[in-house]
Amino acid sequence: MEKHALHQRIRALRASSKHLAASSEQERNALLLTIAENLRTAYPAIASANDADVKAARESGQKESLIKRLIFSEEKLEASLAGIRQVAQLADPIGKVKLRRLLDTGLLLEQVTFPIGVIGMIFEARPDALIQIVSLCLKSGNGIILKGGREAQRTNTVLVDVIKHSCIDSHLGDAWLTLLESHSDVDQILGMDDEIDLLIPRGSNQFVKYVMEHTSIPVLGHADGICHLYIDEKADLQKAVEIAFDSKTQYPAACNAVETILVHEKVADKVLQSLAKRLSEGNVVIHGDSAVCSYIHAIPYEEGDWRREYLQNEVNIHIVDSLERAIDHIEAYGSHHTDVIVSEDSQAVRTFFSQVDSADVFANCSTRFSDGYRFGLGAEVGISTAKIHARGPVGLEGLMSTKYLLSGCGQVVSTYAGSVPKPFLHEELSCEGLSMLTGEQL
Amino acid sequence: MEKHALHQRIRALRASSKHLAASSEQERNALLLTIAENLRTAYPAIASANDADVKAARESGQKESLIKRLIFSEEKLEASLAGIRQVAQLADPIGKVKLRRLLDTGLLLEQVTFPIGVIGMIFEARPDALIQIVSLCLKSGNGIILKGGREAQRTNTVLVDVIKHSCIDSHLGDAWLTLLESHSDVDQILGMDDEIDLLIPRGSNQFVKYVMEHTSIPVLGHADGICHLYIDEKADLQKAVEIAFDSKTQYPAACNAVETILVHEKVADKVLQSLAKRLSEGNVVIHGDSAVCSYIHAIPYEEGDWRREYLQNEVNIHIVDSLERAIDHIEAYGSHHTDVIVSEDSQAVRTFFSQVDSADVFANCSTRFSDGYRFGLGAEVGISTAKIHARGPVGLEGLMSTKYLLSGCGQVVSTYAGSVPKPFLHEELSCEGLSMLTGEQL
Repeated sequence: MEKHALHQRIRALRASSKHLAASSEQERNALLLTIAENLRTAYPAIASANDADVKAARESGQKESLIKRLIFSEEKLEASLAGIRQVAQLADPIGKVKLRRLLDTGLLLEQVTFPIGVIGMIFEARPDALIQIVSLCLKSGNGIILKGGREAQRTNTVLVDVIKHSCIDSHLGDAWLTLLESHSDVDQILGMDDEIDLLIPRGSNQFVKYVMEHTSIPVLGHADGICHLYIDEKADLQKAVEIAFDSKTQYPAACNAVETILVHEKVADKVLQSLAKRLSEGNVVIHGDSAVCSYIHAIPYEEGDWRREYLQNEVNIHIVDSLERAIDHIEAYGSHHTDVIVSEDSQAVRTFFSQVDSADVFANCSTRFSDGYRFGLGAEVGISTAKIHARGPVGLEGLMSTKYLLSGCGQVVSTYAGSVPKPFLHEELSCEGLSMLTGEQL
Repeated sequence: MEKHALHQRIRALRASSKHLAASSEQERNALLLTIAENLRTAYPAIASANDADVKAARESGQKESLIKRLIFSEEKLEASLAGIRQVAQLADPIGKVKLRRLLDTGLLLEQVTFPIGVIGMIFEARPDALIQIVSLCLKSGNGIILKGGREAQRTNTVLVDVIKHSCIDSHLGDAWLTLLESHSDVDQILGMDDEIDLLIPRGSNQFVKYVMEHTSIPVLGHADGICHLYIDEKADLQKAVEIAFDSKTQYPAACNAVETILVHEKVADKVLQSLAKRLSEGNVVIHGDSAVCSYIHAIPYEEGDWRREYLQNEVNIHIVDSLERAIDHIEAYGSHHTDVIVSEDSQAVRTFFSQVDSADVFANCSTRFSDGYRFGLGAEVGISTAKIHARGPVGLEGLMSTKYLLSGCGQVVSTYAGSVPKPFLHEELSCEGLSMLTGEQL
């Protein structure tokens, strides 16, 4: 799109998103349910657009994994609609009081949740990701700029048309949502510091890295998912083998699948055989260091293996001589996403919990639990490995900012300063109930 | 410092900060109190270094405002020591449970606060800022890289020497803290994405903007403080005048002083005379639009005035014809720092609270309340106008990240997936008590 026209559209979206932020929970939930209904009614049109996208993708020789993500079956639609209805049932994230403090008589402070503003979502081929992010943004009162992959363009256009059409009868309007079509729009989005408050890129590592390196807008997400499973000397080895199998094979293409299994040398001889046997049932190829290769059949370690995100049925196994070396390895080669210890020794688990600096640090369960749905967050916009704002699976909360509201009756600071300052009360009050935005405090 | 040597020092600091993050509350608090004691004992050495800094600053013709900030009197030291003791008394920010949920029997999820890691603090001439930030970082378990202004170099060196000396008897060591000396170190710091997790620049607008534009490390803070006071048509005008006077004159050089007063046209004739009279008592120079100039004596508005941060006894006055125009003006020219409405109309206040997109949105009190101490946060590292992570005055909480800890007994995801998935419990538990890091859950 022409630069000026794009800026104009985004500015209108920003204005509209303020309207959305000030709307009632009922209005937003009603619109969510209308959208779900209309998407189901429109399935024939969606399916036909999707068929055309899939056909074009096949003809242009796209990978089967991309085509799998692109296909938007009726089953996937139903799952998406269930997701929308679930989001409608979540508590209103706007106007939650996070701190309420009486600074002095008649001077009430509240820290209140508020939408971030305008979210830019850049994603690749998955049409269901579009529906998920739109419903989370609507629920949380954020404007949303969508830029989907070229492969899904026909499907995305129909989906957004249906959603926008659903907004007509709502007084929220449809300007809080826009779909960009051209690839050149991506670079323009990256430069819109004043118009976009948060970017959420979802796609390949290279793509996410490109976004992170080419914008000064805050980015939520993660590039790599190099997850580890450490089998401690005090591990229950049977559990360890099953956890390893699930972590690698339950969905190898996911970012939370394990890529390297670290084994304490004291249990190597007891666990490696059964681990290799179980992994072979999932057709997993093992890369091992020289010590591992002396126990089991494995492809000898090559330079760079510890940093590889296989995203398929391949895994590294590495023998370490202590918990500390395992932690060092994770810190040196991991991506701070999800790392697991298997151990019956609670002190070892505590050390691992404390020292491993990752978004998700687990004990005695699969890496694959790292997920917004499984965590009970309702839905997720992605998994963040950043250390500020939101970390780990990010649900509605990650789309919220806060405001401090302070209501007085004429107070001035000079009263509380100078040689005889009036002391503050700083009385903590319960955060229950409505904020000053809608409550009766004023 | 030579690039390689600097990187090595920062890496050692990073390692040491992990040790700090895992230390007990008692150890950190004890060290805080030791530091306070030793700083008092060392006052003669501090004072003599400070005298030399002040003398050199005077000789090199530095501005009086800088010299005022640079002078580290015994009174300022006492205030800093009181600050350290206050920080020691705050609740431990590490290991607070923000969410506790039983995903299934024996599968416990906790979201736990954890130090961000390594903080880079770049500040100008104030030695008391050094003490404040070091005590907050120590309390919160974060490593800290300090780069102070050249003008305060002798003072800062003595302060850091005393602090490091205090660490000797503590098994926390002194490697979690470092002071950089050379100006060229600043640009090196800005490039240390892998070693530094958060930058906090404190100084002039240009300096903070420079930092924000030259790093991809997250930056906490604000460049401008263009704060507004809107006097509504339903304002109590007497309150309005006193609030305006305090907001402008109580400390004009602060970022939370008001720069533009917006007046509803319906009350302009009633309030402008008394407002001008009161402001003249504080020797405040008024810049007014043409309508304002028809009521009172004011310097006629010039292009760009609405965007000026005077930081001295000067203020804009602008007449608007509605609450909506006032909000539009604030959105167009403000810096999203602190904006105030004066009105007895609770609906107007709610609209202002809801529509003004600033870190601090106040009603019927002074802009100057925007401050960590006044808010009861204990101490502040700065005021953030960002919309992600921390917004408004930032205390200890802004130095914390979170981790998800999940503890199981062999659970795998395949149990909860497939054609007959086991449902999750997702049972919310109280967040009271110790986290799995130190508690008895394991």
